[in-house]
Amino acid sequence: MNYTAPVADIRFALEAAADLWSVRRGGAFADLDQDLLGAILEAAAALAGESLAPLNRVGDQTGVALSNGDVRTPPGFAAAYKEFANGGWLGLAADPAYGGQGLPRGVALAAMEMVHSANMSFGLLPLLSLGAIEAISTHGSPEQKQLYLAKLISGEWTGTMNLTEPQAGSDLGVLTTKAVPALDGAYRISGQKIFITWGEHDFTDNIIHLVLARIEGAPAGSKGLSLFIVPKFMLGADGRIGQRNAVRCVGLEEKLGIHASPTCVMAYEGATGWLIGEENKGLAAMFTMMNAARIGVGSQGVAVAEAAYQQALAYARERKQGGAVIIEHADIRRMLMTMKTKIQAARALCYAAALAADCGDHARESLLTPIAKAWSTDLGVEAASLGVQIHGGAGFIEEAGAAQFYRDARIAPIYEGTNGIQAIDLYHRKLLGDRGEAMRTLIAEARETADAFSHPQAARLGEAAVALAAATDYMLAAKRDDALAGAYPYLELAGDTLGGMLLAQGIMRASASSAAAKPILDEQNALLGFYAETVLARAPSRLAAIKLVAAALASADF
Amino acid sequence: MNYTAPVADIRFALEAAADLWSVRRGGAFADLDQDLLGAILEAAAALAGESLAPLNRVGDQTGVALSNGDVRTPPGFAAAYKEFANGGWLGLAADPAYGGQGLPRGVALAAMEMVHSANMSFGLLPLLSLGAIEAISTHGSPEQKQLYLAKLISGEWTGTMNLTEPQAGSDLGVLTTKAVPALDGAYRISGQKIFITWGEHDFTDNIIHLVLARIEGAPAGSKGLSLFIVPKFMLGADGRIGQRNAVRCVGLEEKLGIHASPTCVMAYEGATGWLIGEENKGLAAMFTMMNAARIGVGSQGVAVAEAAYQQALAYARERKQGGAVIIEHADIRRMLMTMKTKIQAARALCYAAALAADCGDHARESLLTPIAKAWSTDLGVEAASLGVQIHGGAGFIEEAGAAQFYRDARIAPIYEGTNGIQAIDLYHRKLLGDRGEAMRTLIAEARETADAFSHPQAARLGEAAVALAAATDYMLAAKRDDALAGAYPYLELAGDTLGGMLLAQGIMRASASSAAAKPILDEQNALLGFYAETVLARAPSRLAAIKLVAAALASADF
Repeated sequence: MNYTAPVADIRFALEAAADLWSVRRGGAFADLDQDLLGAILEAAAALAGESLAPLNRVGDQTGVALSNGDVRTPPGFAAAYKEFANGGWLGLAADPAYGGQGLPRGVALAAMEMVHSANMSFGLLPLLSLGAIEAISTHGSPEQKQLYLAKLISGEWTGTMNLTEPQAGSDLGVLTTKAVPALDGAYRISGQKIFITWGEHDFTDNIIHLVLARIEGAPAGSKGLSLFIVPKFMLGADGRIGQRNAVRCVGLEEKLGIHASPTCVMAYEGATGWLIGEENKGLAAMFTMMNAARIGVGSQGVAVAEAAYQQALAYARERKQGGAVIIEHADIRRMLMTMKTKIQAARALCYAAALAADCGDHARESLLTPIAKAWSTDLGVEAASLGVQIHGGAGFIEEAGAAQFYRDARIAPIYEGTNGIQAIDLYHRKLLGDRGEAMRTLIAEARETADAFSHPQAARLGEAAVALAAATDYMLAAKRDDALAGAYPYLELAGDTLGGMLLAQGIMRASASSAAAKPILDEQNALLGFYAETVLARAPSRLAAIKLVAAALASADF
Repeated sequence: MNYTAPVADIRFALEAAADLWSVRRGGAFADLDQDLLGAILEAAAALAGESLAPLNRVGDQTGVALSNGDVRTPPGFAAAYKEFANGGWLGLAADPAYGGQGLPRGVALAAMEMVHSANMSFGLLPLLSLGAIEAISTHGSPEQKQLYLAKLISGEWTGTMNLTEPQAGSDLGVLTTKAVPALDGAYRISGQKIFITWGEHDFTDNIIHLVLARIEGAPAGSKGLSLFIVPKFMLGADGRIGQRNAVRCVGLEEKLGIHASPTCVMAYEGATGWLIGEENKGLAAMFTMMNAARIGVGSQGVAVAEAAYQQALAYARERKQGGAVIIEHADIRRMLMTMKTKIQAARALCYAAALAADCGDHARESLLTPIAKAWSTDLGVEAASLGVQIHGGAGFIEEAGAAQFYRDARIAPIYEGTNGIQAIDLYHRKLLGDRGEAMRTLIAEARETADAFSHPQAARLGEAAVALAAATDYMLAAKRDDALAGAYPYLELAGDTLGGMLLAQGIMRASASSAAAKPILDEQNALLGFYAETVLARAPSRLAAIKLVAAALASADF
């Protein structure tokens, strides 16, 4: 496949819409400037376009295979991983004390978006390593940090997340993997974990598994779970690789998409593991990994949508029908514009969530995270489907490549917490958690944006914000069961509105700056205009579903 | 896979919502009664559930292969085809003079819907034969009818449609396949056709290809196309199979889905063909086939949505999470209900289009056809995607089967005229064709239904009808380019509204009849209630896109 990173769109979303430079207000990130940002994004664009995109199709076709516990990866992937690690890409936002560059997460997310666009299967490997880095940075002991962080940040080793078991799915309370204390202070871990992304490969000397397990005698349910570090190879006291640990890959899933990414069944058979964080506080530690990973998965939704858009655009410019190239047809343009405008809104949502973390605005970060994850990954599926449609019959033929995006995109609304779980999280932990305070702050911001904005469609944003305010009041006042029935359309309304707000803020911020070039401003104005008539204009009509679906569901008899 | 035909839902949609028995008002179809209808639907349900559904997964996994011009089909398919043909299923709505049963198309469509649910790849074979039967019945000479119809109707032979060529796609005007007159009154056909569904197989002694080609010296463009009958094996004067014709399958496409259905590249190398209908009137003759096939493809959208629904429902009833089966979760119920309610609306739309043909109401049939095709096939993709989502991680694993529906469903919005083409057809040929008369009749019917209906959500239907009326006025008055930009959301608004109207009419009609059982009425009321708050409540908000997207697109710079 061909992929040319949309660096100008990404910079606009990052700097203007998601307000990157606000991270420097407190004096933080003093080393970051426009030149450095530009250099990073251009280098990421080159890596993605030149090294990773050419492997996307062969990875899909070749897939992965298991033999005697070893995973055979598609040709070219090992070398690409070396290039990726050597480029320092894992360390962009990591702690300089362990070799990281200490840049904002928002910048790292923008670079990773390009990686995911070029090759979503490949991008999962660093995405999981970043989760492990996050967990060890936050919860690890000084010795654990010393042993693992530098190697993970340099990419010399990779990391994994081991949560799910066959009987568990989204309900981690019923996990049965056991941890038995050993005399050496370690634990012996036994159990089977499924859906372990990049659980096994031979790119690196070691793989660091983070594993949820229950210490013998711990309470049942999610309050009895602890998190363990289980390296594939044990380390000597000097940190050198020692003997093989009792963990192995015993199966690979045959999946709809992301064929180049091994999804492993991992067997722990008395494997040696070390507790990370406190006993029985494993779930909280795991959530540290998951929250960052959720924004990353949201970004995968944006990324696969962008890849599908680029491929459909190229096809539409080339393919002739009725004497003209099909991009001249209004309905083809409508589909392309639907993709493009929602991509830019979702991109801004993901960056805004990451930059809220960089600014230490935890309330904003935690509110935006489930919205960014679910709204962007739903878009990934929608855009990939439109990409197939624009191709007509060719889209259904695997050789054209549009079908791969349609298959790959489908996982993102499922993993790192299904989008249904995100909607419950938004309602239950976020909205009820602060009685709607963070959401009301954002709604006020959306209304102020609409009021201050001179764009002809500003009124659409105002109307969406009014609807979101009404929906928020309803959700806070509703009975729990009623609110849960409305939680998904509520999340969608929030994404519609806040995505539009960010698009508008991007234009306002860029217009106020002398640096913004007119062509990109014109383009962003066109995107917002289309977004207003298609997304914002329909947003308030979600209110009926939010408020009344519980009653309509009550009479359903399944 | 398991599939249990939803006979009660299908009967409700057919009899109550789409008003089956109106076909008998002029004295036609006098043989059809409730008992016969029930017997046919139960027999189709048994065929689909017992013989075709068990082949769905093996067909997907095994696929088809080409060797020396022969197509190897998946195990069990040949025997299933024999059973299907011997059951007389191709002849349900065909002319009794050639062995058909002369029943309404609506009834045949309901039976075929079950076939498509059980095995969409298999269903394509009769779907194409029915198109050939239609074309020969309408345009064939008495000799041609005599030679071909009985064999096609009995299923002893199958039929194909050969339109597309590599350079043509939706634009048939540029077809280059040539027909050279021969001394025997036949023509020699030369060219290559692509995307020929079931173009080759060994289930039957002969395959009857209907081929669009240009007679030497005919005008360029679509007005120079003629339609030819090109049998795989020539027939002697007595109708017996003679020598092999110069047509063969030279390639199979590797597709995203419907793997058990061979999609052939067909090479015509001086093949002998006979003109059907008039010279240079081939396109009109081909449209006869396509219009019936479009309703059939719409029904495939319903069918794959139903299959995905059943599988997701079974999974949701079984899968435990958080101490309960997941069907207890509101968001799982919301997704299931979204599938079920739209399935019932789309089903009624497809049946209504077919029954309009049975009633000889050509204006209604031709208006409903593109709506039924596009709205139902979009639903097929949406429902299959929701089916994957309900499965969580298991949905992305091929073994679970949900992914197959997601892959299979994606073709239906593309073939038999992309859904974008349907929207243009609705605007250009249907709406402009009678200056909106047929649509206004339907809108008046929707308003009357809303006024007469005592359901609490009747107002939602009325509001949607008002919006559809405003949109219709706009489309008729708009400049052509503006109208084309709004054509797709216009089709969606029409589908939303008319689907809701049919659901409401079904309840009204059934309530007025003493025969309707309370449980099914309660269920249909619940479906309409949910449809009102999710689909009808959002329908009027499509107006902005219909009216204003042209302007928003104008400033897009691709």
